[in-house]
Amino acid sequence: MGKKLTKRSEDYSKWYNELVVMADLAENSAVRGCMVIKPYGFAIWEKMQSELDKMFKDTGHQNAYFPLFVPKSLFEAEEKNAEGFAKECAVVTHYRLKADPDNSSKLIVDPDAKLEEELIVRPTSEAIIWKTYKNWIQSYRDLPILINQWANVVRWEMRTRLFLRTAEFLWQEGHTAHATKEEALKETKLINDLYVDFAENFMAMPVVQGLKSENERFAGAEETYCIEALMQDGKALQAGTSHFLGQNFSKAFDVKFATQSGGLEHVWASSWGVSSRLMGALIMIHSDDKGLILPPNLSPIQVVIIPIYKGAEQLETISIVVDKIKKELADFGVSFKYDDRDNLKPGYKFNEYELKGVPIRIAIGPRDLENNVVELARRDTLEKTIVPMKDINKYIKSTLKEIQKNLFDKAYNFREEHITEVDTFDKFKSVLSTKGGFVSAHWDGTLDTEQAIKKETKATIRCIPFSDKNRQGVCVYSGKPSSQRVLFAKAY
Amino acid sequence: MGKKLTKRSEDYSKWYNELVVMADLAENSAVRGCMVIKPYGFAIWEKMQSELDKMFKDTGHQNAYFPLFVPKSLFEAEEKNAEGFAKECAVVTHYRLKADPDNSSKLIVDPDAKLEEELIVRPTSEAIIWKTYKNWIQSYRDLPILINQWANVVRWEMRTRLFLRTAEFLWQEGHTAHATKEEALKETKLINDLYVDFAENFMAMPVVQGLKSENERFAGAEETYCIEALMQDGKALQAGTSHFLGQNFSKAFDVKFATQSGGLEHVWASSWGVSSRLMGALIMIHSDDKGLILPPNLSPIQVVIIPIYKGAEQLETISIVVDKIKKELADFGVSFKYDDRDNLKPGYKFNEYELKGVPIRIAIGPRDLENNVVELARRDTLEKTIVPMKDINKYIKSTLKEIQKNLFDKAYNFREEHITEVDTFDKFKSVLSTKGGFVSAHWDGTLDTEQAIKKETKATIRCIPFSDKNRQGVCVYSGKPSSQRVLFAKAY
Repeated sequence: MGKKLTKRSEDYSKWYNELVVMADLAENSAVRGCMVIKPYGFAIWEKMQSELDKMFKDTGHQNAYFPLFVPKSLFEAEEKNAEGFAKECAVVTHYRLKADPDNSSKLIVDPDAKLEEELIVRPTSEAIIWKTYKNWIQSYRDLPILINQWANVVRWEMRTRLFLRTAEFLWQEGHTAHATKEEALKETKLINDLYVDFAENFMAMPVVQGLKSENERFAGAEETYCIEALMQDGKALQAGTSHFLGQNFSKAFDVKFATQSGGLEHVWASSWGVSSRLMGALIMIHSDDKGLILPPNLSPIQVVIIPIYKGAEQLETISIVVDKIKKELADFGVSFKYDDRDNLKPGYKFNEYELKGVPIRIAIGPRDLENNVVELARRDTLEKTIVPMKDINKYIKSTLKEIQKNLFDKAYNFREEHITEVDTFDKFKSVLSTKGGFVSAHWDGTLDTEQAIKKETKATIRCIPFSDKNRQGVCVYSGKPSSQRVLFAKAY
Repeated sequence: MGKKLTKRSEDYSKWYNELVVMADLAENSAVRGCMVIKPYGFAIWEKMQSELDKMFKDTGHQNAYFPLFVPKSLFEAEEKNAEGFAKECAVVTHYRLKADPDNSSKLIVDPDAKLEEELIVRPTSEAIIWKTYKNWIQSYRDLPILINQWANVVRWEMRTRLFLRTAEFLWQEGHTAHATKEEALKETKLINDLYVDFAENFMAMPVVQGLKSENERFAGAEETYCIEALMQDGKALQAGTSHFLGQNFSKAFDVKFATQSGGLEHVWASSWGVSSRLMGALIMIHSDDKGLILPPNLSPIQVVIIPIYKGAEQLETISIVVDKIKKELADFGVSFKYDDRDNLKPGYKFNEYELKGVPIRIAIGPRDLENNVVELARRDTLEKTIVPMKDINKYIKSTLKEIQKNLFDKAYNFREEHITEVDTFDKFKSVLSTKGGFVSAHWDGTLDTEQAIKKETKATIRCIPFSDKNRQGVCVYSGKPSSQRVLFAKAY
C-alpha cells in the first residue's frame, strides 16, 4: 500500500497497469502472456459471469462444454476462419515427457510420443462445435440449437496487457444453429441487444451499437455486430461481438437439415462472445487517481463498514451495533464486509477500499454511537454524509442506485462529448491527435480508404452505428459518395 | 428413443456407455479422448458446481484463475509430482501455423515458431500456483491462502470412457498455504469432510472416508485423504481426494515466510479436487434399466408435468390449472418443466423423462380435472399415486425429500452388504470374483504385498478407513502382523 498510483493525466497506460496490480485484480504469470486472475479480480468476473449467464438462460440458451483441442484438419476446414487465427495458435504436438538421459532430474519431450495429427488449443470453437452439430442436426425439428460455453481460449499475442490482451483469456462463446437466415440474423441482433443491456445496466458503460466493416469482421462471419465503448483516454474498446455466420460453417462441415417441406438445406449460424477483456474496460471506464471505482451492480463488496475505536471495549460496543446493520443489509440483498482487523489503522483501511473501488464506506466511531449516526462515504464522488442510524439501510439502497446511475451518466456525457463529427481529413487528424475519442466521418465504403486512413492515423473503423443511418455525404478521405457516417477511433 | 437400453445384468459397462449417450449427457468428440458435455449433462454438472462452490466459500475459500500452461522447467521442479504426470502430458511446442506450400488450402505447423521452452497443458496446477504463491507470501500475515480454481485439465489417457476417464476433464482444484503443519492437516481433513457432506447429502452417495496407501497417493503428497464410493457392479470409484502436501512444493519453489517469532520457515500446503468424473459416479450409483435416476438435490428438473389431452380445448383447460401449480412450485423453490409439446404422445414423453431421471412426473388429464386430482409418479420406485390437487405442493416437497433419502438408503444398504471381512486370501479371492464390492482385510503395510495382491486379483487398496482403526490381526496375504483392516476392491 506504500506505493502511490500514477496519475491518469501523467501516463494513462501506466496508471492502468499499476491499478490492476495494486487493486489485487490480476498479475502477470510465469507463462509468457498468460495472467493470474487474483481472488478480488476473479470475484468481479464471477459477478459478470453470473449476470450474463442469467441473461443467456432467460433468452432460451443452455450451457454445454466442447473440447479444448481442435485437430488441425478440422481447424482448417473453414478457410477464412483458419486463416484469421493461424498466426496465433498454440499447437500441441506431443503427448508425453520422459526423463532426460543426460540429467535424470530433468524432463524432455518424448520424441516417440508425437501426435499423428497436431492439436490446436482452441482460439475459438466454431470448428469443433460445427463438427459436433453435424451429428446433432438432421431435421428442422432439431433446430434451433442455442448453446453457450464458458471457457478458456488461447490466442498467441505478442504484446500482451493484463485483461486487455492476453495469450489465454476467459470468455463465453455462444454458437447457434437455425433453419433460416432471418432467424440467425434475429439471434445475432438479440445478443447484440443483450450485450448493450449488460454493458449499460451492469457495467454502467455506455456503448455504441452497430456493425463492423468487412475488414474488421470476425474471420468466417458474413456480418459482425458490435458494441463499442470509449475509455477515459479517448481510445475505443470493443466490448462484445455477435456474428452472423451465414452458411459458412455449415458448408465447411456439411451440416444440412431436412426442411418442413421436404427439402435439404444448409443450416444458418451465429456465434457471439464477450471475454475477460471486459474486466479491462470496467477498470478503465470509471476509475480515478485514487484507484478502482466499481459500479454497485458488479461490486463483490457493495458496502464496507469500518469501526473507529480505541481498545477492545469500544470495538465491542461498535460491533454490536454493526451486527444489527449487517443483518438488515443481508435482508436487503446488499453485499458487505465488516473490517474489524485489529492490526491496521482506519486510515490504512480507507485507502485500501478506495483503491479497491468499494462503492460505499461506512465509518462508525464512539461519538457516532452517542449521536446515533454513521459516516457514509461514496467512492464515486468521495462525498461524505452523516446519516441517522435508523435510516441507514434505506439510505444505502438509494445511494447504491445513485452511484450506479451517476457512473453511467458521467461516462455517457464523456462519450457524447467525444463523438466529433468531421467533414475534412485535416479536421479528422487534428481531432484524433488532440481531443481523441470517436471521430464521426463519411467513408466511401472501400477497404483502400479504410487502410489508408489507418496507416496515416492509426484509427480504425470501430463501428457503423445503427443510430446514424442514411445520411448522404462525401468520404472524408477520398471525396467519393458515402451513405452514412461511421465511427473511427484509435482502439485497445 | 427407439433404441432400448442394455440391461445392467447383461452388461453393466455397456449399459453405462449407452445410458450416458441416450440420456443426452455427453458424447465422444472428434478429438481423441475428449468429450462433449451436452446441455442436459452440463446442467447437472452446473448444479454440482454451484453446491460445491457455495460450500467452499462458506468455509472461507475464494476462487481465482491460474494459467492453462506450465513451462516445462516449472513442471519438473517438484520431482515426484513431475514423474507422476510426465507420461500423460499434452505438450505445446509451437505457436503458429502457416499455409502449406504444397497445398494452399491446408495448414502446417510453422517450424520457425518453435517455443524456446515447451509448455505443458496443466494436468494439475500445483507447479504454476506455487510459483505464483512465492510472490504472495513473505510473512505469517500473508497466511493462510485459501484458493480454489474451477478449470479444465488434460491427462493423456490411453483408454478413455465418458466422464470416468477422459483426456480433458473439468474439475475444481483447491490450493492452500499455511503457517503450520497442523493447520495444513486440518484443512486437508476439513475438505475431506466437506466432500463427504457433498457426496452423501447432494449426490445421495454413501462414501467411505479414509487415507490412501503410499502407493495410491497423489504424486507429491505426504498423505492423501479420500472418499470412496461403491457402484452397483461392485466396483469402487474414487470420488474426491484432498492432499496434505507437507513442504514438498514450498521447498521445490522456495516459498518461505517470516514467522511471528522472527524465524524463516517453509510454508505448509494442501491441495484437493473433485472432477467431472463425479458425473460418472452419479449416473452409475442410482440408475436402473429404464435409465437415469437423479437425486432431487442435483436434478436440473425436479418435476415434469405432462398434459394428457385430445385437442386444443382440453390442452387449454389443463394448462390453466398447470399455471397455478407452476406458480406454487416456483414459490416453493422447486424446479419444473411443463412439457406441452403437441407433436409427441404422452407415452413418448413418459419414456423420455424416465430415461433422463427426472425425480417426479405429474400427469394431468380431463378426468383428473373433474376429480380435482393429479397422477404423481416417482422415478426411483416407479410408484404412481393419485394426489388431491389442493395438496400437490406439500406432497411434492415431501416426496422430493423421500426420494433423496430413499436413494441414499438404497445405496447405503447395498454398500454395507458389500463390505466383506475376510481372513484368508482364498476367501479374499472368492469374494472378489463372486460378490465383488469392498473386501475388508488385514494388510501388513508393505508395497510388496499391495502389488502382489493387485497382480493376482486386480484389486487395489481403495482406502484405509478412519472408522476402523486399531484392530490387530495378521495380513491376509503374508501372514505378517497388521494393525488395521483396509478396504480392497476392483476400481474405476
